[in-house]
Amino acid sequence: MLILKVGGQKNINWGNIISDLKEIRKTEQVVLVHGANQIRDEIADRLGQPSETITSPSGVQSVFTDDRALDVLLMAYPGVVNSKIVASMIGSGINAVGLSGIDGGLWVGRRKKKVLSKKNGKIKVIRDSYTGKVESINSDLIKLLLSNDYLPVISTPAVTKDGEIINTDNDNALVQMAISLKSKQIVSLFCEPGLLKDSNDSSTLIKRVNLGNIEDHFQFAKGRMKKKIMSAKTALENNITVYWGDIKAKKPITSALSGNGTILRK
Amino acid sequence: MLILKVGGQKNINWGNIISDLKEIRKTEQVVLVHGANQIRDEIADRLGQPSETITSPSGVQSVFTDDRALDVLLMAYPGVVNSKIVASMIGSGINAVGLSGIDGGLWVGRRKKKVLSKKNGKIKVIRDSYTGKVESINSDLIKLLLSNDYLPVISTPAVTKDGEIINTDNDNALVQMAISLKSKQIVSLFCEPGLLKDSNDSSTLIKRVNLGNIEDHFQFAKGRMKKKIMSAKTALENNITVYWGDIKAKKPITSALSGNGTILRK
Repeated sequence: MLILKVGGQKNINWGNIISDLKEIRKTEQVVLVHGANQIRDEIADRLGQPSETITSPSGVQSVFTDDRALDVLLMAYPGVVNSKIVASMIGSGINAVGLSGIDGGLWVGRRKKKVLSKKNGKIKVIRDSYTGKVESINSDLIKLLLSNDYLPVISTPAVTKDGEIINTDNDNALVQMAISLKSKQIVSLFCEPGLLKDSNDSSTLIKRVNLGNIEDHFQFAKGRMKKKIMSAKTALENNITVYWGDIKAKKPITSALSGNGTILRK
Repeated sequence: MLILKVGGQKNINWGNIISDLKEIRKTEQVVLVHGANQIRDEIADRLGQPSETITSPSGVQSVFTDDRALDVLLMAYPGVVNSKIVASMIGSGINAVGLSGIDGGLWVGRRKKKVLSKKNGKIKVIRDSYTGKVESINSDLIKLLLSNDYLPVISTPAVTKDGEIINTDNDNALVQMAISLKSKQIVSLFCEPGLLKDSNDSSTLIKRVNLGNIEDHFQFAKGRMKKKIMSAKTALENNITVYWGDIKAKKPITSALSGNGTILRK
């Protein structure tokens, strides 16, 4: 089983991804997790409540999610983006089913009572944040769909046991899901050929990373990439191999699996 | 099996509906179809592209759905409203799974090449409309979920065979789904006690309607109620009994089934 992550950029060539997926699904079950951050930010701007990035004291960036931002997240992730991906797949003959982490208690987590944000050297405590980390996975729902030839197409948010909706990091949730589903491969596609030493120079691609040296690579990670490295570390600790590759490749999944991007392996 | 339709008003007391559902699910499988028109209109207003109602030459109202209005529909129906209903259910111990008609090709229809709209006595042909009627149902997906104790929570839109997203009338789609699932009962909850002769006077409730006299009741239907009567007629022709009831009742589903609203039976 392969867990595929596709980033939240606009103008992704889904045609290429879908043809590649159709080949891969002949021999392998696939679960797709997708982002939607560009569409989310666009809707937020149009509604006059632009997305706000906060930085944790340890330097990790995330989006501030109060109840209004959570509504925008729902509009973008399970709303516009998930629906359009699933429709394209249905039109291409893939029996896709869109889910968020809420559905069937797929991604259950606890809401963080407070979130720390560091700005201009000062630490602020945020209490109206609807965010949390995924702690349990309903892998039965995914297995049920997979064994009936459906392709689950999943995105944030998650849900608490009490039914509160919480934003959660897709990358971490998908690693938890891979562990729960006993998947051994994660392919993550984004707008760069892999992890670059110099983000302006694709010839500085780092081809291999392992558990022993993964932390040395934080220095090359900007913004959201830090979270990707943190989740990849958890994957490696659980014997899962992570392939980072270029979303713009003609066969982006096959290309990443062939080692054209960065392979992170225990 | 019972198909439950809940209207798209804001401020619905989901707590009441969910407790009622929990009782009913002890003896009966339930599929929920919900609206979201008030939230859709609110988002449309906030985005500066208010929803536009068109009236067909025969007097049936619907919402004009071009590609921009379709995005707003996705934000409201599978986005905000579906996610929040499912989260409330998860928090109450009901294993709900949110779907739109796109997922797994649940509601497949054909896009109308042109839509006729009558305004000030003139008929206009609209060609950029993304709407259509549901023609086939993937009841396998619903049966799979039901037999594994999930409660499917479904809303518009539907999808074409080619993967185009189309807005479709929830009421008609749910009747098609009831036929396909061989369900014999539809309960439809909205903000009135049932069909009223005089919409300002709840003592004018019509208790019983049958296939022989259903068309005589068009005169009492305002705006969107016309569509509800048309779909109910199809239900009756297929031996399905339709219960219309008040969403504000303490046990709204049980109350409708007990005959406190309007019962439409062949």
